[in-house]
Amino acid sequence: MTASLADARGVYPIAPTPFFDDGRIDTASVDRLTDFYLSCGCTGLTVLGQLGEAPKLEYGESLAVATQMIRRAGALPVIVGVSAPGFAAMRALTHDVMERGAAGVMIAPPNTLRTDDQIVGYYRQAVEAIGADVPFVLQDYPLTFSVQMTPGVIRRIVDELPSCAMLKHEDWPGLEKITALRQFERDGMRRIPILCGNNGLFLDYEMERGADGANTGYAFPDMLCDVVRLSQAGQREEAHDLFDAHLPLLRYEQQPGVGLSVRKYILMRRGLLSSAAQRKPAAPFTRLAQAEVDHLLKRPARTEPRAAFGVN
Amino acid sequence: MTASLADARGVYPIAPTPFFDDGRIDTASVDRLTDFYLSCGCTGLTVLGQLGEAPKLEYGESLAVATQMIRRAGALPVIVGVSAPGFAAMRALTHDVMERGAAGVMIAPPNTLRTDDQIVGYYRQAVEAIGADVPFVLQDYPLTFSVQMTPGVIRRIVDELPSCAMLKHEDWPGLEKITALRQFERDGMRRIPILCGNNGLFLDYEMERGADGANTGYAFPDMLCDVVRLSQAGQREEAHDLFDAHLPLLRYEQQPGVGLSVRKYILMRRGLLSSAAQRKPAAPFTRLAQAEVDHLLKRPARTEPRAAFGVN
Amino acid sequence: MTASLADARGVYPIAPTPFFDDGRIDTASVDRLTDFYLSCGCTGLTVLGQLGEAPKLEYGESLAVATQMIRRAGALPVIVGVSAPGFAAMRALTHDVMERGAAGVMIAPPNTLRTDDQIVGYYRQAVEAIGADVPFVLQDYPLTFSVQMTPGVIRRIVDELPSCAMLKHEDWPGLEKITALRQFERDGMRRIPILCGNNGLFLDYEMERGADGANTGYAFPDMLCDVVRLSQAGQREEAHDLFDAHLPLLRYEQQPGVGLSVRKYILMRRGLLSSAAQRKPAAPFTRLAQAEVDHLLKRPARTEPRAAFGVN
Amino acid sequence: MTASLADARGVYPIAPTPFFDDGRIDTASVDRLTDFYLSCGCTGLTVLGQLGEAPKLEYGESLAVATQMIRRAGALPVIVGVSAPGFAAMRALTHDVMERGAAGVMIAPPNTLRTDDQIVGYYRQAVEAIGADVPFVLQDYPLTFSVQMTPGVIRRIVDELPSCAMLKHEDWPGLEKITALRQFERDGMRRIPILCGNNGLFLDYEMERGADGANTGYAFPDMLCDVVRLSQAGQREEAHDLFDAHLPLLRYEQQPGVGLSVRKYILMRRGLLSSAAQRKPAAPFTRLAQAEVDHLLKRPARTEPRAAFGVN
Repeated sequence: MTASLADARGVYPIAPTPFFDDGRIDTASVDRLTDFYLSCGCTGLTVLGQLGEAPKLEYGESLAVATQMIRRAGALPVIVGVSAPGFAAMRALTHDVMERGAAGVMIAPPNTLRTDDQIVGYYRQAVEAIGADVPFVLQDYPLTFSVQMTPGVIRRIVDELPSCAMLKHEDWPGLEKITALRQFERDGMRRIPILCGNNGLFLDYEMERGADGANTGYAFPDMLCDVVRLSQAGQREEAHDLFDAHLPLLRYEQQPGVGLSVRKYILMRRGLLSSAAQRKPAAPFTRLAQAEVDHLLKRPARTEPRAAFGVN
Repeated sequence: MTASLADARGVYPIAPTPFFDDGRIDTASVDRLTDFYLSCGCTGLTVLGQLGEAPKLEYGESLAVATQMIRRAGALPVIVGVSAPGFAAMRALTHDVMERGAAGVMIAPPNTLRTDDQIVGYYRQAVEAIGADVPFVLQDYPLTFSVQMTPGVIRRIVDELPSCAMLKHEDWPGLEKITALRQFERDGMRRIPILCGNNGLFLDYEMERGADGANTGYAFPDMLCDVVRLSQAGQREEAHDLFDAHLPLLRYEQQPGVGLSVRKYILMRRGLLSSAAQRKPAAPFTRLAQAEVDHLLKRPARTEPRAAFGVN
Repeated sequence: MTASLADARGVYPIAPTPFFDDGRIDTASVDRLTDFYLSCGCTGLTVLGQLGEAPKLEYGESLAVATQMIRRAGALPVIVGVSAPGFAAMRALTHDVMERGAAGVMIAPPNTLRTDDQIVGYYRQAVEAIGADVPFVLQDYPLTFSVQMTPGVIRRIVDELPSCAMLKHEDWPGLEKITALRQFERDGMRRIPILCGNNGLFLDYEMERGADGANTGYAFPDMLCDVVRLSQAGQREEAHDLFDAHLPLLRYEQQPGVGLSVRKYILMRRGLLSSAAQRKPAAPFTRLAQAEVDHLLKRPARTEPRAAFGVN
Repeated sequence: MTASLADARGVYPIAPTPFFDDGRIDTASVDRLTDFYLSCGCTGLTVLGQLGEAPKLEYGESLAVATQMIRRAGALPVIVGVSAPGFAAMRALTHDVMERGAAGVMIAPPNTLRTDDQIVGYYRQAVEAIGADVPFVLQDYPLTFSVQMTPGVIRRIVDELPSCAMLKHEDWPGLEKITALRQFERDGMRRIPILCGNNGLFLDYEMERGADGANTGYAFPDMLCDVVRLSQAGQREEAHDLFDAHLPLLRYEQQPGVGLSVRKYILMRRGLLSSAAQRKPAAPFTRLAQAEVDHLLKRPARTEPRAAFGVN
């Protein structure tokens, strides 16, 4: 039986979609990646997210990748990104992946939404389209989607839509928003898990503000798992030490556009992907950028945690 | 044999997708509408455009509506809107409708494009995805897509991509752009047809600036056909008289959001649609708005052309 | 004594700033224009608005133009646009024009505002800056400012800020917003005057929805006055006839950018400005555009009201 | 004699404007801050930038702050931010600060610019307004201004406008842009200094790509000076070590909105400002945020450079 999203905590990596150099989906890497997530302590995973190159997949491919990950992940809950320009496509994919065992779906707001009412109205319509019984993750990512949700808007969505099961929080700055939402819960709002995205750039303090974990694609989810674990165990300075040791690379990978190239390159160097290839269109990954990533991976460790990169 | 888009002129209406009140596609109205377009002098038509509610259709439905219109339209060229958030979906739909006899496809730019290079790059990639042999219509609609194409950018696209077969011009203000493009042609740019959208709000002067016709969904395409014909025949004042008589209603229908409700309502009153229903989400069409449209349709004609509304 | 903005109705034209060809302010035209507004039945006026070229004036010039209009207008209330990137400049200009007899100020929202709370918060801070005793006009113009205010947000501002004295309504589409606000008043919201902008493109139906008049710069404010008067007198069809006769030109003048050139050109042809000059930067007004305006002004009248253009 | 901007290198901090708690300008802190910049090796400075709270100053105050810094800085070049919604205000401030000894002015693009031609045209007009003899800094900051300048657009500006004396580079991601611009120089483009903003988040690699230094407001400009010096001296790993030690705090301070609160708080704790006060409107700086900054400042140093914070 699949765990409920409403209890989500820990690390849900955003899985990239593995391709061969010729653009075909690399199913062996899908398995390898899923096994790796399981082995390093991830508590769930998300496929077909913004960085899963979902728009470059045909419908059948999307369904095949999601299904393979769901099956391979076993008891681990798998969330499937179903954001689409129209509700017809969203409903179709949602139906098909839920039937295949997805734990829920993730829905990003279209970048035309402006007012509070438009945002709430959009999620109301989305729930009507996919069905009120399907748990959905609210994706709050203003940097990319240009949609700004105040804590009050999130509260309206949580209050009105019981199937809103989790918040993927990637507002920036976003620390006060976590505090505000946790305060709302003390004032009677239903509690929902808050898992943080944005490549984990503030995960250290987000945990201390009340986040339940991470939901992002940084190429070292093992580190994210450790930071979350240390933080939840009250080992504050150890969590920060580990986090800080990764920050130079993490910051580099967080760059929009080129970030996915960095991530796939590292995952390939870690032996998890057979190729760093993306389908077109893809931001160029220059020789200089690759050298910078190599430099970040190889720098002599100044602190113990630094050694944790473990990439040769 | 289907006419080439490269010779397009006259009126290509943007066809709405007819629904029954319960949301099912009304195929009888699809035929009736197509026959009407043929009968009133339209020279082509466009389906699954921005106002064809394309995002609310499942893939099979999109293909079915497009195919039915293509067949019913006979020798008339049918353009199919294939704008999509990713090239995989765009390629799939393009392939399927071209196989069924579409004359070409229409591609709108994603609203994240900003720089000139990004815009040109996007269309380069789109052509790579759909195939360089598929004629495509460049949709230039900054008000809705927030993408601003200068005449120079359009020239770069026309010069670089031979399959760019037509410009759907709906910039606003847009008169000088037509003049600039026609000047470019005198300077050596390949000539492409310019058909104007934006509900025809400036069709009177767009024709005089060098446009080849209209490509828009105003509920009286018969009037658009007459204006284009009169203008091309040099009957300038007659063209303006007819246009001006429609302008109060045309302006009303041109409102974003509510405009489609107005259009479907009038097409229903004209006996072309069995219902004005839209699939959700749809902007509300209030009792007051309906009364205003009724008023616009019924006002005593002050000039001869006014009588042309012909709706009781 | 100056009339209170809270009772505003009728037509408040947005005054352009008259320049000589060399860029100096043409003070004789300032007087001539003010006298014209008084003579044709305007009930107030607005200076230094979006189309008053305010950002092209130095501080002393802004103050001089506003002061001259205030004095010349006598008992007519004059509203001064004080929108600024910071509250220091807004406060300074507000203080200086109120001291010179302005009836109030107009404040547009900065185009960075997104959420409902940001919008309300901005006006709260503006009032704190200029003083709670200064009547201000709330400018709701999403097409230009990219800030979308729902009726609910306007209600929050009206409820919270007693110095919000008037709404300059130029949302598009905007008819339902007027109806919603008037409904709020029936539900207990304080009544505020709603004067419509957007060059009057929907003034005919805006009056019927409950607007109190126009607050816009169309080059025939005399027509706007007549339409408002006819509408308020219940002479519906006469109001529409007059409005419709102007619509082809009004629509042409409503174009962003080039619109001000059209307006100044017509005001010059009407003998109210000595020059149509704008300070730089200004959108080009081409020979073709000028010919189109001439054509619109000279076309043989098809209806009685058409004759009202009165420009030779 | 003031150094020419065209040779700028090193660190030009963006100076905050010091206020007392009651909002008055704290002139003693202006001097203290300027002296500090001089003492720690800064090679120039910028006042009235985006984070100098310029829009909250009245004209006389702006001029007074700029003049005080220019005088106190002696031979050090001082750049003054003159961005304004209109060219009249930009021209006035430019004239007044150049007369008082400013080395140049900084001009940000208005956030309405979209196309390449609009961007180039804006700077052409700005130069026409301020005078072609005034050196200006081109501010390229898409995250805040929503204006995207390709390397090609920057090249057009540099080629066409000889008074473009420096690039304040704060694109993100921005490493490839530096490489592209340096490549353009090898292809014949006039060389201009590139100083990086964005709180220095990528300063480590920006230096390696060819940047000449930093032009940003991080509260430890001494560290920025050291990183630039080490990098220019070829001590790569030492530069990275120092940079990495600051990265957790630097990243925290780089948050939009709250960042200025963090910066002023640290500068106060360093004894450079007498108060961390901002004029309204200011983003709230919560007790939790302050505790996080305290934590970042106090954490036990894991590496030698860490000790460099020197705040107790």
